[in-house]
Amino acid sequence: MPSQAAMKAALQAYIDGFNAGDADAIMALFADGAVIEDPVGSPLKSRAEFEAFIRQGVAFGARLALAAPIRGSHGNAAAMAFTVTFTQDGVRITTNSVDVMTFDEQGKITRMNGYWGPEDAVTV
Amino acid sequence: MPSQAAMKAALQAYIDGFNAGDADAIMALFADGAVIEDPVGSPLKSRAEFEAFIRQGVAFGARLALAAPIRGSHGNAAAMAFTVTFTQDGVRITTNSVDVMTFDEQGKITRMNGYWGPEDAVTV
Repeated sequence: MPSQAAMKAALQAYIDGFNAGDADAIMALFADGAVIEDPVGSPLKSRAEFEAFIRQGVAFGARLALAAPIRGSHGNAAAMAFTVTFTQDGVRITTNSVDVMTFDEQGKITRMNGYWGPEDAVTV
Repeated sequence: MPSQAAMKAALQAYIDGFNAGDADAIMALFADGAVIEDPVGSPLKSRAEFEAFIRQGVAFGARLALAAPIRGSHGNAAAMAFTVTFTQDGVRITTNSVDVMTFDEQGKITRMNGYWGPEDAVTV
């Protein structure tokens, strides 16, 4: 099981990757077979589908900011509350989200659940 | 599926229940067959085991405070980052946590995952 520090560093690197506009750095955090449910309640994304989603986010200039310190667990998961702000078709949108990430033995993310609802995205 | 507002109200009621010292109000939010993993990585608690855990928390004077607005989802789940502060054996402890709750059609919580690690609890 990865250490608490290693899992928290991966979540921070997910944030830093967006803020650096570095989709490759973001994707390097995920295992080959990673499964993404973002937002929770939408169809699962494969790693390839997720990569397109990430690259679109980077293209939209997504910027992420932690809303509170990253949390670990007593297992192989960690979670964080953050905001993501991006510009789409000239409209600036901020979304409140909680992401939960589960890790494999190698410290790669195997599962990500993103909790945000239709009412958690607002124009700013 | 419960509305976003109904799920968020239940999470807020979970916080308010602790702050009012009202274990009955907290337990009323959960379905009979609810399963609790708090912290994630520890053995699952049945509703009865969870009730003992909640009543102990109330006895310890646990106080919860949101760290950021409650998030919904595009499904039957909602999540929140918060802190819980309580006094045990004269020591005051604050824990950073993220709770994810899943709901049934009646708006009762069927599953709660609490994400906090050994390093997320500090004496204050």
